Amino acid sequence: MKNAFYAQSGGVTAVINASACGLIETARKHPERIGRVYAGRNGILGALTEDLIDTGRESDEAVAALRHTPAGAFGSCRHKLKGLDQSKIEYERLIEVFRAHEIGYFFYNGGGDSQDTAHKVSKFGEKLGYPITCIGIPKTVDNDLPVTDNCPGFGSAAKYVAVSMREASLDVASMCSTSTRVFVLEVMGRHAGWIAAAGGLAADDRNDIPVVILFPELPFEEGPFLSRVRQNVEKYGYCSVVVSEGVKGPNGNFLSEAGGTDAFGHAQLGGVAPLIANIVKKSLGYKYHWAVADYLQRAARHIASKTDVEQAYAMGRAAVELALKGENAVMPTIVRTCDSPYRWEIGSVPLSEVANVEKMLPRAFISADGFGITEACRNYLLPLIEGEDYPPYKNGMPDYVTLKNIGVEKKLTTPFNG
Amino acid sequence: MKNAFYAQSGGVTAVINASACGLIETARKHPERIGRVYAGRNGILGALTEDLIDTGRESDEAVAALRHTPAGAFGSCRHKLKGLDQSKIEYERLIEVFRAHEIGYFFYNGGGDSQDTAHKVSKFGEKLGYPITCIGIPKTVDNDLPVTDNCPGFGSAAKYVAVSMREASLDVASMCSTSTRVFVLEVMGRHAGWIAAAGGLAADDRNDIPVVILFPELPFEEGPFLSRVRQNVEKYGYCSVVVSEGVKGPNGNFLSEAGGTDAFGHAQLGGVAPLIANIVKKSLGYKYHWAVADYLQRAARHIASKTDVEQAYAMGRAAVELALKGENAVMPTIVRTCDSPYRWEIGSVPLSEVANVEKMLPRAFISADGFGITEACRNYLLPLIEGEDYPPYKNGMPDYVTLKNIGVEKKLTTPFNG
Repeated sequence: MKNAFYAQSGGVTAVINASACGLIETARKHPERIGRVYAGRNGILGALTEDLIDTGRESDEAVAALRHTPAGAFGSCRHKLKGLDQSKIEYERLIEVFRAHEIGYFFYNGGGDSQDTAHKVSKFGEKLGYPITCIGIPKTVDNDLPVTDNCPGFGSAAKYVAVSMREASLDVASMCSTSTRVFVLEVMGRHAGWIAAAGGLAADDRNDIPVVILFPELPFEEGPFLSRVRQNVEKYGYCSVVVSEGVKGPNGNFLSEAGGTDAFGHAQLGGVAPLIANIVKKSLGYKYHWAVADYLQRAARHIASKTDVEQAYAMGRAAVELALKGENAVMPTIVRTCDSPYRWEIGSVPLSEVANVEKMLPRAFISADGFGITEACRNYLLPLIEGEDYPPYKNGMPDYVTLKNIGVEKKLTTPFNG
Repeated sequence: MKNAFYAQSGGVTAVINASACGLIETARKHPERIGRVYAGRNGILGALTEDLIDTGRESDEAVAALRHTPAGAFGSCRHKLKGLDQSKIEYERLIEVFRAHEIGYFFYNGGGDSQDTAHKVSKFGEKLGYPITCIGIPKTVDNDLPVTDNCPGFGSAAKYVAVSMREASLDVASMCSTSTRVFVLEVMGRHAGWIAAAGGLAADDRNDIPVVILFPELPFEEGPFLSRVRQNVEKYGYCSVVVSEGVKGPNGNFLSEAGGTDAFGHAQLGGVAPLIANIVKKSLGYKYHWAVADYLQRAARHIASKTDVEQAYAMGRAAVELALKGENAVMPTIVRTCDSPYRWEIGSVPLSEVANVEKMLPRAFISADGFGITEACRNYLLPLIEGEDYPPYKNGMPDYVTLKNIGVEKKLTTPFNG
């Protein structure tokens, strides 16, 4: 019998804790195979510094509450392990910590980089004579992992953006005769336009809302964009714009890094929404408002997609089940078997096929003019935002759990100086 | 028997349509006293231009759905009628339109300016020999109307800000060991800090979240602010900041109008959040993220406060009941009779006492250091965000109603050229 190590990696989501919940609850059902489940405090850093959290000290109720709690309950980090050559000392340290705590299972909950790391740990453990079962668990609001039909975390961010855009558009429509004509919402997705695409769901057959989307996959062209905005304002009285933070100019640079300055002359970092709004104002003269959702969109557990929560939980559970079946260096995946009615099942993929591959929004999901989504895109997205899964509330506020996160006694005498 | 005219005024909210719902449903129960209920298309402009909507053409189901639909279903506008001397032509026109359509009741759903207008219409109608019953209905996310304990619209905006801040803070806390240390959320409230104060509800006895609030009531002082942020980062690893769009510098000017430029050298309008974030970065070196909620916070019907929805509906209903009791030039109010358990009842106030009075956040609601809320403030705010009132969903999206908004045939031959 071996212990397990679980770590959350990279940007957190509204449902990454649901994966932790699925993993811990499933592991607790197999005490004869899995001993303690340790979590890394602040992700993989917790393994490197031997700062392990004993999830066994959390009650069943606290673990169950992870399902409805956003962000990373054990802490996450941005720390990428590089290749085995460059980061050899780190891989050695991981194996040293795993060996000291009799860890036989490594569950790594993250995006493409994390799947790559899990893959390398698997290979390296074997090489060092400490074989360890490594299972990746998909997670990213960006939805850019390959093979899996979608990534847990994305559906809830997509629902947040779609709902927010519909609501804000109704607001603008109400007032446009005398007030704001153009509303710009900036959303995440530095490389892939999946979240931006979700803004297109604000409109449908019964909600005739003019939404213009600026995708990171296509270079921003001022002329066509402005003429599209003007058409909408002339027809509807207003126009809603969703802009991805990763939109690039014709020169290939991020628009958000174009180099403005604030009132004190400091470089203005971030904020492509105000930039787009200013372009509209300058060229067309329309009154505008803009919003930047930033972390709100990936933390918004209050409006999480039920599908997303279920899939996140299922990925955590499947990770344990794959490990117990003797699989290694794999990641559970979501396999779509039908669009409507939506049906999905759990598959798996070797980590080697996932690592470092980014799945962009296909061109066929973007309308011919480059500013909207196609029916194919809508059919893909809609099931992912289906259903609501409200957290419990107390005193008008979501009742999210804070874990005790009790540390495990260190066994190594050497601190990590990687 | 006379007809009624209803108009939505100024910035819309998540629940102003709930007031319309209460008003129309109640009027429909009294067909012997109130004939048609007309709504102004785009608010008072609809009266001036004789562009009236016949709400009688909407089904009972559509009217009921207004209760869960955000923004202004008939359109609103920013158009302030001035004093009787300066705007005489407009008041005359209103009476002309009311007379032509046999309108005996004027219901005006808005903030302080609107209550002032309703008051003046009442006086002026009498003077012109066309007495009309004028009832104001309170509405504003800013919560700055006097006499009434709170304003419909505020509770839902407050809930949105409190929930969003709690969620984003959990996100930042998860990642702060290697990523963002300071998160800044900009919220509405140009003159009064009620919405900013709601950000303080992110923290409570069971959620130890370090929130620093920048209120519009107090001048921004860089030194004390930065030292407060640094204390929090040193103790918690991170700091969450809520900044009101209306924060002013020691010179009394809005910080947001301090005059930065964007990448193209255009004046940067709005956005005090990036400015505050840059100040933190420059002085303390912390990595930051910022968000601007803008319209999202006042349109977020998906996370509306149940208390707020009930009160908005009750204000619409009470407006009709007051009119039918023969009251004139009054506004229904919310009277708090107990904090805990929260109890409230409906009162009323002469419009003359409401018009053009702004209710600021009392100093006793702001902590001594100027960066937080007091227990008194918490006790005031908590009941207003209590309860959830979710809209129905269809295909993963809130199922908001779009009215037919069929126009009423014009009776006047003269267009309005005010």
